[in-house]
Amino acid sequence: MVPDTLGVLGLGAVGGSIAWQAARLGVPRILGYDASTRDGVAAVKAGAVTELVRDAATVVANADFVVIAGSGDDTRAQLCALASLLLERGVFCTDVTAVKRPVVALAEELGLAAVFAGSHPHVGPTSDGFRCANPGLLSGTLVYVTPVMGGDRAADEVRDFWTRSIGANPVALDATQHDQLHAWTGHLPQTVASALAAAMAAGGPAGVTYGNSALEATRQARCGTALWAEVLVANRDNVLDALRGFAASLDELREALAAGNRRRVETWLTAAADWRGRFEP
Amino acid sequence: MVPDTLGVLGLGAVGGSIAWQAARLGVPRILGYDASTRDGVAAVKAGAVTELVRDAATVVANADFVVIAGSGDDTRAQLCALASLLLERGVFCTDVTAVKRPVVALAEELGLAAVFAGSHPHVGPTSDGFRCANPGLLSGTLVYVTPVMGGDRAADEVRDFWTRSIGANPVALDATQHDQLHAWTGHLPQTVASALAAAMAAGGPAGVTYGNSALEATRQARCGTALWAEVLVANRDNVLDALRGFAASLDELREALAAGNRRRVETWLTAAADWRGRFEP
Repeated sequence: MVPDTLGVLGLGAVGGSIAWQAARLGVPRILGYDASTRDGVAAVKAGAVTELVRDAATVVANADFVVIAGSGDDTRAQLCALASLLLERGVFCTDVTAVKRPVVALAEELGLAAVFAGSHPHVGPTSDGFRCANPGLLSGTLVYVTPVMGGDRAADEVRDFWTRSIGANPVALDATQHDQLHAWTGHLPQTVASALAAAMAAGGPAGVTYGNSALEATRQARCGTALWAEVLVANRDNVLDALRGFAASLDELREALAAGNRRRVETWLTAAADWRGRFEP
Repeated sequence: MVPDTLGVLGLGAVGGSIAWQAARLGVPRILGYDASTRDGVAAVKAGAVTELVRDAATVVANADFVVIAGSGDDTRAQLCALASLLLERGVFCTDVTAVKRPVVALAEELGLAAVFAGSHPHVGPTSDGFRCANPGLLSGTLVYVTPVMGGDRAADEVRDFWTRSIGANPVALDATQHDQLHAWTGHLPQTVASALAAAMAAGGPAGVTYGNSALEATRQARCGTALWAEVLVANRDNVLDALRGFAASLDELREALAAGNRRRVETWLTAAADWRGRFEP
């Protein structure tokens, strides 16, 4: 759907960008709420929201589509608080958290199938405020939409919102599959980059020059640590599975090195290089 | 020293760049040798060498400074073959391999203290040919110079060569320290990037979209696998040490995740983020 009145709860980098882009694509009325006055005022000044509202319930009471744009904890708390109002008014609602099973399970528990589907826009978890919002942030971006059991119609409305009000590319995916995939495609790389940086912090030689390879392999370690801790813990079963796969690969190398077997080391490096080569032109 | 006649054995990306830059900085005569006719001819055409010579001994017989620019295996074979001629003529000599203990130990065994010191220009191991040579490749580049026991004078001459004939920045370092440092600064990041790619190749989900974080963390996996296998095996004691440190960091995270302890996960992520933050403006 293209809402007449869009409500956005949380006007940080992601929520702020959603509101701003919807404003640009012609949604006439956009109600914003943020616990931080600074982000709220910045969003109004930028023209990302048409009205700043003092509490989340007032947003839901007046909007016909609501995006909850907060951390996992915030999102679940909002869903609990707003569930009956969402159902009573028949307001379609989605969220933007990076791990989908917890919020989808909660929505099922709360009986929100008629109005809710989860979303995960592929922009990486961020805890930055509205100053990092950008109306183009979600334009053309892949957005996973994870339906609640029996919630296919709500999922259709949510996908339609992403396509028509934001210009993003929504793809429907089961929450369980979503979380498995992302353990590999996003959470494992983050974990490995952080582990490399943590190892260097703990045991690396002091005062040396790290070259481009070390800096590139650890770049992701500089992340929003509170949000990433939430993500990794929320998806820990899948992350631990992926880490077992990673540890097995590393063990293969360690054995080959301990044996001084250059041929095995080369075979191992070649499998890795071939995989990575698929992503280069 | 600035040689009157420089000899370069191996005209690939590194050897070719050394010859070429020396030519540009005014070394009048540059003798080149390469087992591949194609690289040799390309070096002559580019003006990187003034004469292409048919064997390594002829280069040593006519040069007053020799750079052996090959793999570890090639370099040690050349040193064995050329040792008596180098000593007899008093020709200063260096190499460019990435692990320094093996070549320094061999030079000590061969009694080459008067003429040899190892070098490691910080350009990453490469197996590319002369087509990847570039006279600017080593300009301003850090070059570790590792003396042979009792070989301080030769090490001085080698450092002088890098400074005056190439415009690089040589730093003297003991071979043992060099190899320890590089296990952390270069070999561990390479190993981790390759292990991540190898794990994804073996166990990652098929047909999914890998985002920037996964591609960045694995970029180094696409490397010259034969040369890297040689490097990792040559430095395997230090690499295995560094890998133990890395595995310990990863184990900390796995324990915190298994316990669902978000606070510990965040503390761990923060130590990593703080370390990495030191390298950003």
